[in-house]
Amino acid sequence: DGAPPPASPAGLSAYVAVSQLLGLTLLATTGAWLGRYQGGVAWHSPLQFNVHPLCMVLGMVFLQGDALLVYRVFRHEAKRSTKALHALLHGLALVIALVGIVAVFESHRTKGTPDMYSLHSWCGMAAFVLYLLQWLLGCGFFLLPGASFSLRSRYKPQHVFFGIALFALSIATCLLGITEMLLFNIRDSYSHFVPEGVLANTLGLLLLAFGLVVGYVLTRDDWKRPPLAEELALSMDFKTLTEGESPSGSS
Amino acid sequence: DGAPPPASPAGLSAYVAVSQLLGLTLLATTGAWLGRYQGGVAWHSPLQFNVHPLCMVLGMVFLQGDALLVYRVFRHEAKRSTKALHALLHGLALVIALVGIVAVFESHRTKGTPDMYSLHSWCGMAAFVLYLLQWLLGCGFFLLPGASFSLRSRYKPQHVFFGIALFALSIATCLLGITEMLLFNIRDSYSHFVPEGVLANTLGLLLLAFGLVVGYVLTRDDWKRPPLAEELALSMDFKTLTEGESPSGSS
Repeated sequence: DGAPPPASPAGLSAYVAVSQLLGLTLLATTGAWLGRYQGGVAWHSPLQFNVHPLCMVLGMVFLQGDALLVYRVFRHEAKRSTKALHALLHGLALVIALVGIVAVFESHRTKGTPDMYSLHSWCGMAAFVLYLLQWLLGCGFFLLPGASFSLRSRYKPQHVFFGIALFALSIATCLLGITEMLLFNIRDSYSHFVPEGVLANTLGLLLLAFGLVVGYVLTRDDWKRPPLAEELALSMDFKTLTEGESPSGSS
Repeated sequence: DGAPPPASPAGLSAYVAVSQLLGLTLLATTGAWLGRYQGGVAWHSPLQFNVHPLCMVLGMVFLQGDALLVYRVFRHEAKRSTKALHALLHGLALVIALVGIVAVFESHRTKGTPDMYSLHSWCGMAAFVLYLLQWLLGCGFFLLPGASFSLRSRYKPQHVFFGIALFALSIATCLLGITEMLLFNIRDSYSHFVPEGVLANTLGLLLLAFGLVVGYVLTRDDWKRPPLAEELALSMDFKTLTEGESPSGSS
């Protein structure tokens, strides 16, 4: 208990810190845009639409990104706790995103605007449904005790690839949403570099920067979470049990 | 010479075939959209703008994607030839993208439309400039003889990460361009699911599918290009020379 905590790889902490700074900045920028230029956010009012961008940036970008980072940040904790936090953050992201989706559908109904015709809505609905599916599959394979060790090992690379792909799709969908909002709200003044347009464009760049830094941390080979000593022993036992090999590897 | 060619991993050829089918479909869909609904493509005419989407989809998506795939497809060729093809395809993509960029600037000048105010233009310019930079750095590090083996090894993971990130950014920028074009051209009828809107949305989904399949092929560990026997021997010699270790690994 009194031993010093194991060190993280050089650079990792700095990149994670930058990602969090970018994450908070993009939340603040979204808030500033909605508060300063779009009248603020409220549920039962004509401002209900504004709940949508706020929830999507918070849920589908910031929380989803942080959920992806937990295996890199909490690299020396027990795998079970890190896994639970990973599932919890993604679950929270899904709930917040659902609130954001309800907000835009209700706002459309109030104003009589049609739903689901734009590329933004197609990409967004695909991202949300696939994200929910990915979460359910992840819980089924990795949290419930049913799946075998070999099944988990085979599914894991798919889970990781689609996790990063869905994160990228979520960010692209936000950029589409920003473009739609600007062309609906300030179509004529957008080309004169009015402050609202520049602020919203900057939000787009911040979203890209957040995605880039999170993606870099996730894909750097030497920053992957090393298995703890007891996990290595356990996985060896599992392999022995399931594949019928002796632990020494000789037949 | 008479030996049978070495086999590719199971599944890889199928995924590459699907990627090429998607690539050709998205070029055809872009052509159909521009030809059927936007009056076609021509340089010295009011149709000059339409050169832009065609060149960007061809250069920044299809050719860039195929350039990324060459190390997976030509996995048993000499590294030098594959590398030259990789650089050549990216170079061709850059030239075609440049034509597309000139087209939109000239078209804007003719019509008196301001430049570089939209999120699409910011993302697109960033993508093009960084893509050119990445190409120049790639040629400098990997094609010219100057860089040492250890410098190349250190730069390679960065080159791969930023290559995939730029490909993703290019696709996101195309989606933004589609949204802009639709909201400028069919703003009022878009919400009534007119054929042009549905076709352009479908083009967006095809772009995402192409990116997904190419990304999957690129990031699957067991589909990476294996070093040829002579490359392994050579890299061992280089390591020995640069690090002063004996080839057996003992000191």
